[in-house]
Amino acid sequence: MRRSVLLTAWRLSIVQPGPHRMSSFRSIAHVPRSQSRHPLPPGSPKPEPTSGSPPDHRLLAAAQDLLITHPVSPGSPLFLPHGSRIFNKLTNFIRSQYALYGYEEVITPTIYKKSLWETSGHWENYKEHMFKVTGWEAEGTEQATIGERERIEAEEEFGLKPMNCPGHCLLFKHVAGKLSLRDLPVRYADFSPLHRNENSGSLSGLTRVRRFHQDDAHIFCRPSQISQEISSTLQFIQTVYRVFHLPPYKLMLSTRPKEGYIGSLEEWDRAEAALKASLDGSGQEWVINEGDGAFYGPKIDTILTDSDGKEHQTATIQLDFQLPQRFGLNYLAPAPAAEQKGILSTDPEELKESGFATPVIIHRAILGSLERFMALLIEHYNGKWPFWLSPRQAIVIPVAMTDEIVTYAREVRKGISGLSEETGRINANRPLPMSRRTFNVDIDESGGLLSRKIRAARTKHYNYIVVVGEKNLQAKTVSLGPAFSRNQEQGGREEMEKGPKDMPAEEVYQKFVELENEYA
Amino acid sequence: MRRSVLLTAWRLSIVQPGPHRMSSFRSIAHVPRSQSRHPLPPGSPKPEPTSGSPPDHRLLAAAQDLLITHPVSPGSPLFLPHGSRIFNKLTNFIRSQYALYGYEEVITPTIYKKSLWETSGHWENYKEHMFKVTGWEAEGTEQATIGERERIEAEEEFGLKPMNCPGHCLLFKHVAGKLSLRDLPVRYADFSPLHRNENSGSLSGLTRVRRFHQDDAHIFCRPSQISQEISSTLQFIQTVYRVFHLPPYKLMLSTRPKEGYIGSLEEWDRAEAALKASLDGSGQEWVINEGDGAFYGPKIDTILTDSDGKEHQTATIQLDFQLPQRFGLNYLAPAPAAEQKGILSTDPEELKESGFATPVIIHRAILGSLERFMALLIEHYNGKWPFWLSPRQAIVIPVAMTDEIVTYAREVRKGISGLSEETGRINANRPLPMSRRTFNVDIDESGGLLSRKIRAARTKHYNYIVVVGEKNLQAKTVSLGPAFSRNQEQGGREEMEKGPKDMPAEEVYQKFVELENEYA
Repeated sequence: MRRSVLLTAWRLSIVQPGPHRMSSFRSIAHVPRSQSRHPLPPGSPKPEPTSGSPPDHRLLAAAQDLLITHPVSPGSPLFLPHGSRIFNKLTNFIRSQYALYGYEEVITPTIYKKSLWETSGHWENYKEHMFKVTGWEAEGTEQATIGERERIEAEEEFGLKPMNCPGHCLLFKHVAGKLSLRDLPVRYADFSPLHRNENSGSLSGLTRVRRFHQDDAHIFCRPSQISQEISSTLQFIQTVYRVFHLPPYKLMLSTRPKEGYIGSLEEWDRAEAALKASLDGSGQEWVINEGDGAFYGPKIDTILTDSDGKEHQTATIQLDFQLPQRFGLNYLAPAPAAEQKGILSTDPEELKESGFATPVIIHRAILGSLERFMALLIEHYNGKWPFWLSPRQAIVIPVAMTDEIVTYAREVRKGISGLSEETGRINANRPLPMSRRTFNVDIDESGGLLSRKIRAARTKHYNYIVVVGEKNLQAKTVSLGPAFSRNQEQGGREEMEKGPKDMPAEEVYQKFVELENEYA
Repeated sequence: MRRSVLLTAWRLSIVQPGPHRMSSFRSIAHVPRSQSRHPLPPGSPKPEPTSGSPPDHRLLAAAQDLLITHPVSPGSPLFLPHGSRIFNKLTNFIRSQYALYGYEEVITPTIYKKSLWETSGHWENYKEHMFKVTGWEAEGTEQATIGERERIEAEEEFGLKPMNCPGHCLLFKHVAGKLSLRDLPVRYADFSPLHRNENSGSLSGLTRVRRFHQDDAHIFCRPSQISQEISSTLQFIQTVYRVFHLPPYKLMLSTRPKEGYIGSLEEWDRAEAALKASLDGSGQEWVINEGDGAFYGPKIDTILTDSDGKEHQTATIQLDFQLPQRFGLNYLAPAPAAEQKGILSTDPEELKESGFATPVIIHRAILGSLERFMALLIEHYNGKWPFWLSPRQAIVIPVAMTDEIVTYAREVRKGISGLSEETGRINANRPLPMSRRTFNVDIDESGGLLSRKIRAARTKHYNYIVVVGEKNLQAKTVSLGPAFSRNQEQGGREEMEKGPKDMPAEEVYQKFVELENEYA
């Protein structure tokens, strides 16, 4: 299996400029979806669509109303509210780490003219994987003179972006003149939708798509900063992956190809030494993949091995010596003498001796394609989401459908959703503070037996079932119980196994806040 | 001025299907940018680029490093980190209200095939304002047979979406079969980037763009729910606009055109009566604009009048009787008898008597185009952002550049950013909780005089200046002072006028949390 991944990645890395993500993205399409060898825990509800077979994210996503696909936009999943909750939670999780790791989010265009793709090299090497965008008026050019037609086409011909790097280079180029040395590294993060024109016959679910998002970033740094940035990124990956209780992964370093590479031997040696030092320092398992780097720089891939031994390529870190040159990026560097002394001075006298140097770009994604990562998580959790990530965190079930109990149940729903104290605010014209944590809590107001409602809630994989009856109404409590248990590989915790417990709604809310804070 | 806005809106509403936002968006392009007649408060720094002239968002955005524009993607602003902070804060503000108002966010494709735009009516009426998207392989069709070429074109010809409504109709159609009556209204919110092919010669800043985002939503409801939904939306608008301390706005109801409208007279009368009742109930000023509704439904526009009497059209609420028909949307309705009794039963016996009914769609945007709203805010605040929205919330300035003071200043920066308690977590492999509030705090480690640094911080419009000297180091405090004052129209508060005050960094952080919670 690994062999074919690597061959694909290699083939693509030869023909592609700058786009480590492209190769990893495409090569992954050949990795079979994850399969779990863990049987369901006894007593847990059968996930109907996949019973007896390994989890398939497409069936689970349909069963949980996460998304749909539609022939009017093949390969562009439409996320329903529940799928969007997971998607947004993943991006917010990554976003909230960016302050710690020094990333700055940017928002960049969807379409760029041919001239940008020529600068970046995509026009030459990646054109057939991109969608072309034209203004409709450029259509009527049959009547135009040849010169006029060329002008209109040049003016009105765009490529739909398959990746963010060229846009980030434009931003860096704009600010470079104002940067002092201590402003480096500059780290631009971007969650833009990206499009790649995959063959329509191969499209499927969240793994083989045309439209996707990445938790993408580009680090513009000095060559001497490579090692520190790689270490920090490896740390970032480790911290994030622990949260998901995913199976262990290994890191793979791909080094300088034998021929056809750009940059000097010395640059490569220094960069590879920096990467190796960071990998050693990470304390994680890593392997070397001699000569398999892209022609424009070495890279580190994350290979996740699931319980069936299947491999998934997710996070990736790619050094790039080429794009900075193509875009003519540079920064004001200290003179070699000052550099040697390790002085990063802003002394004007010293800067007089300085010159301009070319930064290195590090392309990196932590989760990779958010769509593909979601597919992996759907199968990993087999539909049983951890609380913090769950689109269905709790459901309130009134024991009887009397007015009193239903009214109380609605209050409870507001309380544990995080909207209770704030309810009056709608009339008082006060907006909800952005800091207020809110949760996905439904209420089952249908008729029918309590036992049937509880069974339905379990089938839908709500994390908590909140039963409200006459006793609770009197005591101003709710009866909180877990709806299912998760095995340890999925991050299951002892606490989840306990039975229902009576407590006030406010206590449930506080418990939910804590669970979310702990990514439990 | 208003006259031309209305004429434009009218002209567009005639030729456009479903897209109230289109008309408002386009018409606004003709409204001159806001101008403020308020002089700067005495002693406040001159905003160099606009000194002596009314604020121009393009100059202010450049001076504050909010965004750039670039000829490789005309009309698609590239948001730099500081502009992205404001953009993300605006979307998060709106997002955080959605739990209160019952909206569900969805994530929908960027490109759709011609067939969808034919269904929605855009192909017929809006084609020239859309960008065409094709797979590159569809290019080589000169050699193909005519039949083959047609097939490829049909397969591979897409429109870049100018609005979200058709995608939301697909989602509603998918879930409609599973909906019980109490699941209505369904409210889908979407922050997708949208593209409209404006003439390249007219593009400018954030007001005349090709790529933009809306805080867009579509409400699918029963006709009997229109009034309640409109009331709630008017309340939403009022609550949101108060936060920005914008000048007063008035509401304008556009009613059934004399001819060319779809739907029955009775439907229109009922809908208009519902809208009027909601407007009356809002307690806000409103005017009627007889016969100026779109052919597919009446609408309410928000007209904001700035201090110079210039009008800006921002929020909009548009009823649509047409799109639900075009997409064949329906829901399971109770029999008229049950309906009259006001019973929304799920009793199977009663449902047997039910039939299918067509929902109404309400298109609505609170801020409207986020880009245009940002332009309005930039001019409204004249670069002096309120704390919660500011890309530069505070700057830490060490009094002297001794090792001890700089080290302490860095600690202080972490503390008031919200990263201090968490610093150790990077090594401990613990991610920052998503609930942790973090702030935009810089540090000035350049050499030079304290007074010069303070002057520079004021010029950059930091909200707070945090000075740290020997005395603070000993007392474990900082010296917190406001960097500027804002006038009352901009939401300035008494508190902002006070001088510097000594307090621990933790107290500053708590103060910042409170300011953000109050949208101050």
